[in-house]
Amino acid sequence: MSITTPQGFRAAGVSAGLKANGGKDLALVVNDGPRHDSASVFTSNRCKANPILWSQEVVKDGVVRAVVLNSGGANCYTGAEGFQTTHAVAEQVAGNLGIGAIDVVVCSTGLIGLANPRQNLLDGVDEAYAGLGDHGAEAAEAIMTTDSVSKQVLVEGAGWSVGGMAKGAGMLAPQLATMLVVLTTDAVVPAADLDAALRAATRVSFDRLDSDGCMSTNDTVTVMASGASGITPSLPDFIEALTQACTDLAMQLLRDAEGADHEIAITVLNAATEDDAVEVGRSVARSNLFKAAVFGNDPNWGRVLASIGTTDAAFDPADLDVAMNGVWVCKQSTPHADPATVDLKQREVSVTIDLKAGSERATVWTNDLTHAYVHENSAYSS
Amino acid sequence: MSITTPQGFRAAGVSAGLKANGGKDLALVVNDGPRHDSASVFTSNRCKANPILWSQEVVKDGVVRAVVLNSGGANCYTGAEGFQTTHAVAEQVAGNLGIGAIDVVVCSTGLIGLANPRQNLLDGVDEAYAGLGDHGAEAAEAIMTTDSVSKQVLVEGAGWSVGGMAKGAGMLAPQLATMLVVLTTDAVVPAADLDAALRAATRVSFDRLDSDGCMSTNDTVTVMASGASGITPSLPDFIEALTQACTDLAMQLLRDAEGADHEIAITVLNAATEDDAVEVGRSVARSNLFKAAVFGNDPNWGRVLASIGTTDAAFDPADLDVAMNGVWVCKQSTPHADPATVDLKQREVSVTIDLKAGSERATVWTNDLTHAYVHENSAYSS
Repeated sequence: MSITTPQGFRAAGVSAGLKANGGKDLALVVNDGPRHDSASVFTSNRCKANPILWSQEVVKDGVVRAVVLNSGGANCYTGAEGFQTTHAVAEQVAGNLGIGAIDVVVCSTGLIGLANPRQNLLDGVDEAYAGLGDHGAEAAEAIMTTDSVSKQVLVEGAGWSVGGMAKGAGMLAPQLATMLVVLTTDAVVPAADLDAALRAATRVSFDRLDSDGCMSTNDTVTVMASGASGITPSLPDFIEALTQACTDLAMQLLRDAEGADHEIAITVLNAATEDDAVEVGRSVARSNLFKAAVFGNDPNWGRVLASIGTTDAAFDPADLDVAMNGVWVCKQSTPHADPATVDLKQREVSVTIDLKAGSERATVWTNDLTHAYVHENSAYSS
Repeated sequence: MSITTPQGFRAAGVSAGLKANGGKDLALVVNDGPRHDSASVFTSNRCKANPILWSQEVVKDGVVRAVVLNSGGANCYTGAEGFQTTHAVAEQVAGNLGIGAIDVVVCSTGLIGLANPRQNLLDGVDEAYAGLGDHGAEAAEAIMTTDSVSKQVLVEGAGWSVGGMAKGAGMLAPQLATMLVVLTTDAVVPAADLDAALRAATRVSFDRLDSDGCMSTNDTVTVMASGASGITPSLPDFIEALTQACTDLAMQLLRDAEGADHEIAITVLNAATEDDAVEVGRSVARSNLFKAAVFGNDPNWGRVLASIGTTDAAFDPADLDVAMNGVWVCKQSTPHADPATVDLKQREVSVTIDLKAGSERATVWTNDLTHAYVHENSAYSS
């Protein structure tokens, strides 16, 4: 169950010497076709890393034949030298495969402002090329940074499948997390349909993760379709499978968020618009006070209402209902069930907010704010 | 040097039994005139506490004769009963003073969703009235919640002065912090001028504190002018004094932020507009990753750039300069001086960002994200 389970894909994960601990740090994923349709979404951060600047050009024609990814350095804010490194890596992949560099997506992750050692990367590409095979698991391992586990998924269709891998354990914020994702499928899906499917899938999965409100400079999600199964699923069927794969990976990212003790699902009901529901959910997901309260197993619904009040969504401030783990602790903006009856000890916490302003809904996911989060992000650069 | 230093004001701070530890928890500030000009600003949170709903009506005519404040309960989301408590407290003050309740501002602070014991408040008002005098310090003490010290200020004009007191130690966020502030002056300042002066002063002081990104439901800043000095300063002179008082109190709040190890001043230079400068400064002030890095004495400028990139301000992502404590660690969006030369051990940290997009500037203040912050906000409800 990996990115190499769908037919037409090979991968490798090797040690190029970027990680100080000698672990795997370079992954190569190749689409052997017969088709090379692709779609990608990137961070909406205006400060983009060099691999993003390169890959945005690569994906424009809807054709991607390979994705090369490295951990151990984000190649962000490293100047012209850094961009040349990205370009050289794409050329090295292309030279080995006998394709054009303009069909090679490059992804990097790690510390900002740190130049990646170019020769290590080029040698790593050669080694990865030599080792290409059914090695999706090794590739997933090679893109880990502060991740404690590698993340993979497989969703089966009727004679076709979607495979995926992801890395990310913090900076999980709107419009993508610090997160690299590669998805593969052997279904026949023209690039335009892939693009529509990817946007539909990421909109309700990765885009609704908001672990710590911080948006990365390097986020990339790329899907490649080889068409090797010869089967053309209906677009709704494909969107459903791709959304399932993205949601599964998103939940794996959430559960591995740096230092978190709780996964928190904030569901906003009866909003006037879906955007309102997302805005309200995100406002709660960004409240350090609320997140610290959850860490302390304190069902502090006042902090939920204070967050809702900062939004422009449609609602009556005097008529809000809030439940935590199914207990309606606040009805009509006044105390209702005794908060002491809410048990927050288990990892999974649900917050339900009824805006009573319409019929739309959305769920936003976040984590609690813990000592371990502060420790991980103060004791180490990342 | 307190709110009772300017002529025409009396105050008291008493224990009404709201605080479990028996500490002072009710303050009364009275303007004995001859003039009763006033101006106020309130939280922009749409979820407002009952005292805000009441006081917004009180201040409309520019006349305020007294402010009564309690700690030990925010009286927020306590329903109609809670509003009646606020009204009853105003009536009790008015009855004692022989004035109308509609000239009495009420402020409350503490836990949301908790009903304040009405009789305790009414008895406390009577006791405070009986003890009115030059007791600004006691009043400042009575409004403390998680504050470790009381906050007071005095700014001297030519024959007139501005006194102030504040409480607040967290939720210091845009458009006011969780914060109650009373300012007094014996200058002659008509209500319309007071309003203009207060908005000018808070815009560059309290509004630019962003300790933890959380916005309170109860924030109130009220200024009263007694005219007792008989002196009418020029409006610019008065604005300058009021801004100085507000900035001094804001810095006292910043230094007392819950669990903070560092005060961080983020100054944005050469912005196209002042709004751009504030937006960029605030984006950095809200980055948990950056704030945790400062706690770890790590001059992680990559996290600064990643935050800038989330804004809509005018700048070239490839041409940003960033200094920490005066060391330009990033020039033209590439590494410059060695970050190891930046010493972050002292409490005061400066971040300077050059947007190279215009000539406007602004400073936003925040704190680092520490274990103590997580502890204070997870171990106790507030």
